[in-house]
Amino acid sequence: MTETSVTLPAAVPLLPAGLDTPCLVVDLDVVEANARRLAGQLDARGVRLRPHVKTHKSVRLAQVQLEVGASGITVGNLGEAEVMAAGGIDDILIAYPVWAEGPKAGRLRALHDAVRRFAVGFDSIPGAERLAAATSGSSHRLRVLLEIDPGNGRTGVAPDRAADIALAARSRGLTVAGVFAHGGHAYGGRDAAGAAADEVSTLGAAATALRRAGVEAPIVSAGSTPTAVLAARGEVNEIRAGTYLLGDRQQLVLGSVPPDGLALWVAATVVSTAVPGQFVLDAGAKSLTKDRPEYLEGHGLLPAYPDAVIDRLSDYHGVVRVPPDTAVPRIGEVVAILPNHACPVVDLFDSFVAVRGGEVVGTWPVDARGRSG
Amino acid sequence: MTETSVTLPAAVPLLPAGLDTPCLVVDLDVVEANARRLAGQLDARGVRLRPHVKTHKSVRLAQVQLEVGASGITVGNLGEAEVMAAGGIDDILIAYPVWAEGPKAGRLRALHDAVRRFAVGFDSIPGAERLAAATSGSSHRLRVLLEIDPGNGRTGVAPDRAADIALAARSRGLTVAGVFAHGGHAYGGRDAAGAAADEVSTLGAAATALRRAGVEAPIVSAGSTPTAVLAARGEVNEIRAGTYLLGDRQQLVLGSVPPDGLALWVAATVVSTAVPGQFVLDAGAKSLTKDRPEYLEGHGLLPAYPDAVIDRLSDYHGVVRVPPDTAVPRIGEVVAILPNHACPVVDLFDSFVAVRGGEVVGTWPVDARGRSG
Repeated sequence: MTETSVTLPAAVPLLPAGLDTPCLVVDLDVVEANARRLAGQLDARGVRLRPHVKTHKSVRLAQVQLEVGASGITVGNLGEAEVMAAGGIDDILIAYPVWAEGPKAGRLRALHDAVRRFAVGFDSIPGAERLAAATSGSSHRLRVLLEIDPGNGRTGVAPDRAADIALAARSRGLTVAGVFAHGGHAYGGRDAAGAAADEVSTLGAAATALRRAGVEAPIVSAGSTPTAVLAARGEVNEIRAGTYLLGDRQQLVLGSVPPDGLALWVAATVVSTAVPGQFVLDAGAKSLTKDRPEYLEGHGLLPAYPDAVIDRLSDYHGVVRVPPDTAVPRIGEVVAILPNHACPVVDLFDSFVAVRGGEVVGTWPVDARGRSG
Repeated sequence: MTETSVTLPAAVPLLPAGLDTPCLVVDLDVVEANARRLAGQLDARGVRLRPHVKTHKSVRLAQVQLEVGASGITVGNLGEAEVMAAGGIDDILIAYPVWAEGPKAGRLRALHDAVRRFAVGFDSIPGAERLAAATSGSSHRLRVLLEIDPGNGRTGVAPDRAADIALAARSRGLTVAGVFAHGGHAYGGRDAAGAAADEVSTLGAAATALRRAGVEAPIVSAGSTPTAVLAARGEVNEIRAGTYLLGDRQQLVLGSVPPDGLALWVAATVVSTAVPGQFVLDAGAKSLTKDRPEYLEGHGLLPAYPDAVIDRLSDYHGVVRVPPDTAVPRIGEVVAILPNHACPVVDLFDSFVAVRGGEVVGTWPVDARGRSG
């Protein structure tokens, strides 16, 4: 796959004056439009949207999603679930095979008892046994979703093993409420359609296998923003997209977020022009991460300087290479960076600077920042 | 450079039972030995140690360094300086060309007024002008260090420009107290000796140029753990090493931290073995980062499973590839990961689990976590 991203259109966002860089800027108008767009597309087809909030880790942004039609939220671990539950959100799926031993057993039990509609993923019989033990004696059974591998090769069982594992989980006292998969191989390049087809077919095969085995498991849940629209076919009745809300450079290049759907920017200041042929930003690896898919050149995109490449990152320095005879910013200028991948970037900051029309309207906390387990 | 790291010896650390993974584990016995070793080596040569605390961002760990002989600390930005000053540390160098405009002007001024011995880097006349303006009217002049580029090509001026820029800074009302450089090109491979030689020669040339121009600038400060020992020659009289305290896989492979100097581990749990030929840890990109120099294979080292490769990271998953017929952990097992690069990994966690001899002795906050500007 050749590099195409730097030539893609990304409008230069209007940044407020007086920012203390590096900082995260989120445009609430764009966020709300993104939230409505996907919710509307899925609603028109009768597919539920259960957004993955690991992208933004913000209770308020989750509430924006719920207000325009999301049926509940998805989280990636107990810590995110705890933060969202404390924020008043009462329908939470942990789309992860939580190993409920040690401190995590008590944490899972507390969530199971406190959250009105709660479910957790699993992909093994030992994992199911720990989940059952952690919630034994509760007034109600724990709801679990069996993870299916859609060809991503990360977690999840093959469809032909689904019935045996679901029956085993049921026999341990769990309620198997459905199946889920994550078509993460869509991020490998421009193969979102293939990944979505994999998700549809493997989830369908697993759901069929469970029905034949007598397991009533109505939820058939697919994931990822690239596969969100495409995968809402077949038996899929729930989508867990996350990045669609904020957008990022990866989604822009994959075509799964439109150029006007870019809501998240890292603002940075040019702090050095001492070395010829480059300038240096105060956003380094601790602001942008080194997350860089092979099909992207550099560690983020500068829409105001589209020929510049964020070439090297150290902790607090982003070294930007510029071709000869192209415009460069002056020292002290504040620039907007479109990050390669929103999720790990957001996790580095304590708060978003929330803007509308280039004006600051608030500081929104990244409530679940650092909650990774 | 060929891949050699997985065959390097790294002893399997003793982890406490009952950890809530993923988490950072720091062995205080190893930390103290590392702190003493470098302090002793430099003291024997009359070179001051001013450790860079961006590695650990912990007031208590900085105090460990000061107790065994560090002359002060180095930080990478105003935020780290503020946290360390609030923790009672009164000798702080910001080894960074701070652009003191907007909110940063007031923050810099407050530090200048509050910290007993304070200095900040610069590498341009406009940068010096902002620093002078931010501290004008103070009871004492701001001390600044001119950054010199030792061939790293990031920030810093060439030695032949040093005198002009230093004179300009002095004429604006700043006290030019010295020169500094960061031999970061040592991280590119096994060329620490070459990078150290570059640092020595360029810093020496700059110091000479300043003397000839009549600028009394006694501090000649070199940086980075790989160059720490080697660079303490010539006119260099201060070293700003950081990672030597905790160690990491990169330093181990570069030979700048010995196998018994590895103090920092990420503890993770095996959460899935559903896909054949691999296992999956609950430490992903939000625990390990995607920081991976080209000479390292995978996203960290598992000393207990030295043939395993942490091949792919998503936010909360680390997919570990294992060759056929090698030992693999059971699902639920807790393993220790030696991270590729300590600095950005530490910045993802709110605290360290502090251990001695495999027993938990405390929880130490990562005080300056997320302070990147």
